[in-house]
Formats: sequence, C-alpha cells, structure tokens
Amino acid sequence: MKQYIELIDKKLDEFMPICYPQKIFKAMKYTVTLPGKRLRPVMCLETCKMFGGNFEDAIPTACAIEMLHAQTLIHDDLPCMDNDMYRRGKLTNHMVFGEANAVLAGDALLTFAPQTILKNSKNLGSEKLIKIMEEYFHAAGAFGVIAGQVVDIESEKLLEMPQLEQTEEDDKLLSETLDYIHTHKTADLFKLALRCGAIIADATDKQIDSITEFGQYLGVAFQIADDILDETSTFEQMGKTLGKDKEEGKLTYTSLYGLEKAKKDLNILIDKCYKILEDNNLKSEIFNQILEKIRIK
Amino acid sequence: MKQYIELIDKKLDEFMPICYPQKIFKAMKYTVTLPGKRLRPVMCLETCKMFGGNFEDAIPTACAIEMLHAQTLIHDDLPCMDNDMYRRGKLTNHMVFGEANAVLAGDALLTFAPQTILKNSKNLGSEKLIKIMEEYFHAAGAFGVIAGQVVDIESEKLLEMPQLEQTEEDDKLLSETLDYIHTHKTADLFKLALRCGAIIADATDKQIDSITEFGQYLGVAFQIADDILDETSTFEQMGKTLGKDKEEGKLTYTSLYGLEKAKKDLNILIDKCYKILEDNNLKSEIFNQILEKIRIK
Repeated sequence: MKQYIELIDKKLDEFMPICYPQKIFKAMKYTVTLPGKRLRPVMCLETCKMFGGNFEDAIPTACAIEMLHAQTLIHDDLPCMDNDMYRRGKLTNHMVFGEANAVLAGDALLTFAPQTILKNSKNLGSEKLIKIMEEYFHAAGAFGVIAGQVVDIESEKLLEMPQLEQTEEDDKLLSETLDYIHTHKTADLFKLALRCGAIIADATDKQIDSITEFGQYLGVAFQIADDILDETSTFEQMGKTLGKDKEEGKLTYTSLYGLEKAKKDLNILIDKCYKILEDNNLKSEIFNQILEKIRIK
Repeated sequence: MKQYIELIDKKLDEFMPICYPQKIFKAMKYTVTLPGKRLRPVMCLETCKMFGGNFEDAIPTACAIEMLHAQTLIHDDLPCMDNDMYRRGKLTNHMVFGEANAVLAGDALLTFAPQTILKNSKNLGSEKLIKIMEEYFHAAGAFGVIAGQVVDIESEKLLEMPQLEQTEEDDKLLSETLDYIHTHKTADLFKLALRCGAIIADATDKQIDSITEFGQYLGVAFQIADDILDETSTFEQMGKTLGKDKEEGKLTYTSLYGLEKAKKDLNILIDKCYKILEDNNLKSEIFNQILEKIRIK
C-alpha cells in the first residue's frame, strides 16, 4: 500500500509540471497533491494487478482518476456549493487561489486528467484508450459524479419541505435519494478506478461486472463510514470541518437511520465485498486492508 | 450558411436529451441552445468540406465544440468571473439555475462534449478519434481557453498597478498580454474547430498548419471586432451588457490602441485570412461570408 502511494505521489508530481500561466497550474497541482490516502488510484493499480495485468500500465489512468477526484473536491468546496474552508487539513483551493481560479483549476483538471492518460498510455493502443475515455466521461459527467452532486444539493431543499411527514412513502423517498447520492457522488469514481484497472488488464466482461458490483458496495460503505466519522470524529483526525452536515440538517446515512444501524449496514456491505472477491477467486492484501480500514468496530 | 445553422441546431437538440437529474441536463442545454451564430461548428463543417471530406462526418465534433463554447460562456459569466446577467439577450445560466448548478452544468458539458463525439462518430475509427480527443483537451484546458481566461483575470490587476507607466516596455507588456488573451480565449476554439474539420477530412499536415494559421488570424480579428462593437454597439444589437469593459478599465484592443487603429488592424487580419485561402487554393463562400461579416467598414 505504502509503495503504491509513494509511486502515485511521485508520478502525480511528474505528470503535473508548472507551465505558464503558472497560477492555474499551481492551483491544479495544489489540491491534487494534498496528502491523501490515494484510495482511487491504489484501487485502480491493484485491480489491474489482480486481473493479471501489469500495474505499471495503469499508472497514468490511476493518476488521472486522482486528478478527477481533486476536481470534484475543488468545485464541491466552492462558496456556492458546500462553502468549505479546509480540506485534508489545509485551506481549500478557493481560499488560497481565489474563487475564479478555483473554478478554472477544476475545469482545467477535467480535461488535463484524460489528456494525461492519452499522453502517457500510448502503449495501450487506440481502442483500449477509447474505452477508458468513455468510462472517464461517463463517471465524471452528468451521468456520474455530477448527477450525485446535483441531487445532493436538491436534497437539502427536500428536507426543508414542510409537507414532508414521517410516512413510509417519505422514508422510501429519502432512502432512495440518499442511495442515489452515495452511488453517484462516491461509488461512481470507485467503479471508474476498478473498471479501468480491469480493462487495462484485459479482464472479461463478467469480471468487469463483478468488480463494478464490488465498487458499488465499497463506495456506499465508504460514504457511510464517512457519515459516521463526520459525527464521531474530530477536525484533527479528519482535516476538515466536521458536524456541518448534522448542523445544516443534511441528508446523511446517520441522520436517516441512526448511528447503530449505520454501523451495522456498513459491516454488511464490507462482508458483501469480501464475498465478491471470494466468489471470483480474487486475492488481494491491499483490498483486505482497505476493507478493514473502513470497517467500524 | 443558414442550412448549416439549422442542421447544427437540430443535431444539438438531438444530442442533448433531458435525462435524470433533469435540472442539470436542462441547465446544460439552456446555454448551448441559446440562439447564436454557431460560428465554430459552421467553420468545422465547412473546413471538412473544403478539404474534400464529407461534412456529415464532422457533425458530432462540430456540435461538441459548440457545447465547449457554451461551457466557457457559462463559467465566464459567473459572479466570481465577469458577473454577467445577460448573454445573447437572455439571462445567463446562473441567473436561471443558480450558481451551483451553473458551475456543475459547465463541468458536465466539458465531458459531455467529447462523450458526444465518441458516441456518434464511431465511423471515424479509434485513431482519428484519439487525435480529435487530443485536440479537444488541448484547446479546452489550461493550455487553451483556460490559459486565456486566467491571464485575462490577471490583466485586470496589471492595469491597476500604480507603478505601470506609459513607457515603451509597459506598452510592449500590455500588447503581448492582450495578444495572449485573444489567442487563447478566442483563437484556440476557432483553431480547434478548423483543425478537427481538417483532421476528419484527412487533410495533410501542411494543410492543417495553414488552416491553423488562418484560425489564429480569424480568432484575433473576431475578438478585435468584438472589442469595437463593445464600444460602438447597443444592448439590443448584441444581447449582452456592453461598455462594461471600458467602464471597468479592462484591457481591450480599443482601450490599448484606440478605435481607429483597431479597425485598421482588423481589416489587415481579414486580408491575411483571404491570402491563406488563396495561397492554398481553397474556395469557400461560407468563409467569405464570415470574413465580410467581421469586417468593419
């Protein structure tokens, strides 16, 4: 895990030289290179390896997915969105570079990421590159993370509706909405990382389906864990302002189901992930570590 | 020209169905389908035809470039950028859909545009598609339009610097800065449209170089014409708030060189465009029309 992370950090630095106009390249690199767990690129490399591919072939794609992840963080943190001042213990992009440059840095990353893949993965061949582009566009756009963010914003209004009663139907609506948000805001990028790793390793369609299902469970599990930590953790542990969701009455897994059920469901999802690995005869120390890290005792 | 525009409008409508979550797809489509001259897609189709290609092969790419153009407009109009309320006679995107959705609609268009190409141009083959993707990423990102926008924002600070005297060196700096802004904010998207049209038509490298040079001149000419109209036109004629650049002391061609020199230089650039067409034995009624439309008598 540590070796993967070091490799990814080194490659991210290499892939992102500071060109003219420096301000925009610095703003882009600032958020991408904030210290992080590099979960998505690690999963991309490990999936490639797990399916018999050469993980080095997946490095540009893995790094591009981390850039895309940074893009979503930069724009989500904007004053007109979540208005967050801290991220990974550091000031958010717009706090350092100003709002206009933060918007532009996010925009620039959205195309710089796939550009990095095309530039550094020529050995994969045009057809595989096109497949990866399609996966990237789908996950990055209005069918992917952006759909999740839009519904997340809308859901705040949903909760403010005075006619919303605690009927069974309302509960169902809230539950489905939350599942939609988690699927698209979080699981879609996980699935992108896993699917790309599998595609690069020439995995079969059936294998790609399995790893996609794995990514769905892992993504939602990760988001439930995040919701739990938002309630039970501290700024020092997480590097961002916490408890805001609760304060603002946001729709979260813990607000909807309570802390106990959240913990129970989280562990059920983790077990489902293990089952998929087992059923497909996939062995990975890295994925075991990731799953155990998310589990809440 | 009218036939091209009608075709592009029809295809833009087809390529952009309103999916779930409707809000984001509506916001994306709103700005893309505002009535416009469709200059960039028209140039893409006409270039393809001029180099002996089938212009129908270029339709998805032409429409994608219009989507990218709309993306830049949506984000440029944001309160943290130019803070514009009107565009093409209608309210700007954030005025209708709110700031958060306008940011997300722009983000979504950045990947929806190349996704539209990949989905609808399979007949071009993987290798040509990769070339088009590379062109798109270069023009859309921090080496293209975004570089122009960043330096444009910076230039406002440059003009406010008290130490800036009217020396020859200062003039040179301002002149180079303005050229950089025009090249990247405007000419880069023109060049994208022309180069993609040429690539789809299997033009030679030399032909692509020529049409790129043409796009550089035409783009700067177009921007000079826009600066002139900003001073001499009315809201009714242009559909956007005018005179703001002058009021805010922004760096424009007319503010730097005066109205007379601007008109003169504009016509010199138009003549250069004609010369390139002649030298390459390229005949196009459409480009003649575009060039004459920009010319200021």
